[in-house]
Amino acid sequence: MAQQSALTPQAEDFPRWYQDVIAKAELADNGPVRGTMVIRPYGYGIWERIQAELDQRIKAAGAKNAYFPLFIPESYLTREAEHVEGFSPELAVVTHAGGSELAEPIVVRPTSETVIGEYMAKWVQSYRDLPLLLNQWANVVRWELRPRLFLRTSEFLWQEGHTAHATRADATAYAQRIHLEVYRDFLLNVLAVPTYVGIKPLSERFAGAINTLTCEGMMRDGKALQMATSHELGQNFAKAFEMYFQSDQGQQELCWTTSWGASTRLVGGLIMAHGDDQGLIVPPRVAPIQVVILAIKESPEVSAAVSQLADELTKAGIRIEIDRGSGSFGRRVVDWEIKGVPLRLEVGPRDLEQGKVVLARRDSSEKQSLALNEVAETAATLLAGMHDEILHGATLRLEANTHSVTSVDEAIEATAGGFAKIAWDALKDGGEAQLRNEAITVRCLQRRDGSLPADETESDLVAIVAKSY
Amino acid sequence: MAQQSALTPQAEDFPRWYQDVIAKAELADNGPVRGTMVIRPYGYGIWERIQAELDQRIKAAGAKNAYFPLFIPESYLTREAEHVEGFSPELAVVTHAGGSELAEPIVVRPTSETVIGEYMAKWVQSYRDLPLLLNQWANVVRWELRPRLFLRTSEFLWQEGHTAHATRADATAYAQRIHLEVYRDFLLNVLAVPTYVGIKPLSERFAGAINTLTCEGMMRDGKALQMATSHELGQNFAKAFEMYFQSDQGQQELCWTTSWGASTRLVGGLIMAHGDDQGLIVPPRVAPIQVVILAIKESPEVSAAVSQLADELTKAGIRIEIDRGSGSFGRRVVDWEIKGVPLRLEVGPRDLEQGKVVLARRDSSEKQSLALNEVAETAATLLAGMHDEILHGATLRLEANTHSVTSVDEAIEATAGGFAKIAWDALKDGGEAQLRNEAITVRCLQRRDGSLPADETESDLVAIVAKSY
Repeated sequence: MAQQSALTPQAEDFPRWYQDVIAKAELADNGPVRGTMVIRPYGYGIWERIQAELDQRIKAAGAKNAYFPLFIPESYLTREAEHVEGFSPELAVVTHAGGSELAEPIVVRPTSETVIGEYMAKWVQSYRDLPLLLNQWANVVRWELRPRLFLRTSEFLWQEGHTAHATRADATAYAQRIHLEVYRDFLLNVLAVPTYVGIKPLSERFAGAINTLTCEGMMRDGKALQMATSHELGQNFAKAFEMYFQSDQGQQELCWTTSWGASTRLVGGLIMAHGDDQGLIVPPRVAPIQVVILAIKESPEVSAAVSQLADELTKAGIRIEIDRGSGSFGRRVVDWEIKGVPLRLEVGPRDLEQGKVVLARRDSSEKQSLALNEVAETAATLLAGMHDEILHGATLRLEANTHSVTSVDEAIEATAGGFAKIAWDALKDGGEAQLRNEAITVRCLQRRDGSLPADETESDLVAIVAKSY
Repeated sequence: MAQQSALTPQAEDFPRWYQDVIAKAELADNGPVRGTMVIRPYGYGIWERIQAELDQRIKAAGAKNAYFPLFIPESYLTREAEHVEGFSPELAVVTHAGGSELAEPIVVRPTSETVIGEYMAKWVQSYRDLPLLLNQWANVVRWELRPRLFLRTSEFLWQEGHTAHATRADATAYAQRIHLEVYRDFLLNVLAVPTYVGIKPLSERFAGAINTLTCEGMMRDGKALQMATSHELGQNFAKAFEMYFQSDQGQQELCWTTSWGASTRLVGGLIMAHGDDQGLIVPPRVAPIQVVILAIKESPEVSAAVSQLADELTKAGIRIEIDRGSGSFGRRVVDWEIKGVPLRLEVGPRDLEQGKVVLARRDSSEKQSLALNEVAETAATLLAGMHDEILHGATLRLEANTHSVTSVDEAIEATAGGFAKIAWDALKDGGEAQLRNEAITVRCLQRRDGSLPADETESDLVAIVAKSY
């Protein structure tokens, strides 16, 4: 590094580092209305890659995309009692439209179980219509008093899946399938974030759910981030919206429903799970720019080599950007490091005289001098391996900073810089409350072998506890 | 056709036919809040194809996607006088959020010139930052008193591009580039809808624009639909949001901006430009399902052949759906015709005994018997040619139903079932108002050779006039 980083060091002030990197990498800005967010092109480019990868997995799991309205009649929200209690403090309400006051106030959707329930009830008549598997990509609004870009914003972007099934077993199996084949798979194989996959204890469940599955990632300060959740809604919404179907026995029965979502919060998770004092580290499969080609100095030879390399890399299916920029070279290197672009190709007149360029990795200090005709193949090879290396590093950190403990006091100590693993039974007599006093929560419950329990009453469960975002 | 169509014939009642086809093809439903829309999976599948094709062209034109907030402070809207006047009757206003009344009411975006103007002003410092080329995919709200699914809904989905340039000439050239390379190209080569491309007269311009470009398509009842618009905003928004940049001469100058959009209204255009009394006709490039494989009757042989054909077609890059459905065969054929799937493959036990299946086109009454191993290649060939044939048919209708006239009275007569072409000069002394009394408007102005004029004051322009949606 020729120059000092422009960012607050993580060890000095992690939240400040997070703010700095979002601003300097040009990921997002605060919106004009409190708690809202402007996602800038580089941040949105990451989100587009996340969307494409999740969407492909959601479709492979058989769900189809649809779109339901932003505006929900206030009366819909009140039909499921726990749901309205959970959401009403966060609602934004439209009272005027088209120049006059509305007869019934309209709620800006905080989530769409209610409106989708209403339509599923119309569309589902017979067991032949089940399962009904829908997903939508949408914006939702939950008023935030302590907003934080990507992590907690009053408006955020997400996908929300909603499904209806004939039996509880089908609903449970589908929620687990989405959770493992869509979310866990995406987190491991695209975002390179290993997570603890488990169920939420009652105290942390979604409003209206009978079971909530979660993927909990570890950020570089040792805190947890809930990356995605999937809910078994039992028959709660089916009852509220009268979702009956005729069974193959000819009886009227209530559906069993699920919902599941992941949001722009994933961008926050990506930043905090991988970033270092030099800025973002964006794993190659989610990187909008995989290789940045830097002209060290303008000259006809440099310009020609940059164009040729750009062509070759693009033909190899690599996403590139060219920087012929006019600022100092050192400054530009720092800026691209902040943006976390996996590979940086430095093209300068002196190296070119020997037919060479320099290729630098963002995730290590490794640099190599390459002949021009080696660049495309070497870059492709490095990018292919880099995902696994970043994931491996994150997995080592997750393991090293997860401490098995046997008492609440030990758990409190262990979560100063990581996660604690403790028998769920050890938290039952007031232990969960004692942790909560220290801003520590049960992130999820797992079986001893790491698999998903049916519910929190199963015996011999393990709790993963941590401070969290 | 074995069975009668389930739709109102177009000639009997075109608006009713439109409603029927949307319901029966399962494209969309009315939402619970007046004027809103639920887009069902088949309708959304068409929109996803539209999005992908437009997005690719927008990126090729150099614009990058970003995301700006749904909520805009009311005060932003009032900064550009014409803009607020144009939009205030259509606004939805949030007055309460997070459990209390807001100090300043918040507007749900009807379009985003204002909020994007605010941020562009921050991001643009120097001529080196220009052009700044942004696009967003978003929902917007404009309260509709006479809603019609896809055509006029209180909430709709769209892309809105917003760009800032150093000179008027650059802004003009970019707006024209988008209009021709993105919109006209997409309409011709994906939606198979030929359009009149021209500028709007002053009376039809976007609120705050100095010039509006439009693509006007002809629906099967002879009415016009505005398919996409691009606006030169001059320096109006730059002034309102203080978008200054330092020129290469070191002076502070105001930017020139553009905006351009296309919405879910395109789905309405697709329906009305191509559909017939049997239902939708979806051109193959925008079809979510290009070939439907119908099992005429369940049997092990049929089931095996259906699976084999599905594999082969999928491998050939064709989007398919399998219908092993249990209803009557005739009824299922009618349903797939309503959905407008380009090709229908009928697989039955009798044909299979001779190693044959039947392939039927949706856009003609042509049917052919094929050997199993000919299916994938024949389907690919038919799909490749079908786009041009559908476009050719639409172009012939557009030409046959556009009448060159010389007087306002003739124009009124000609627009009973099509468009009229008339010298713009002939409409200047009250002619435009006279047409408007008959619910006929100037859809666009062109040069005699069909090219784009600089503005409506150019001499010797031609007006395309029509009734419209």
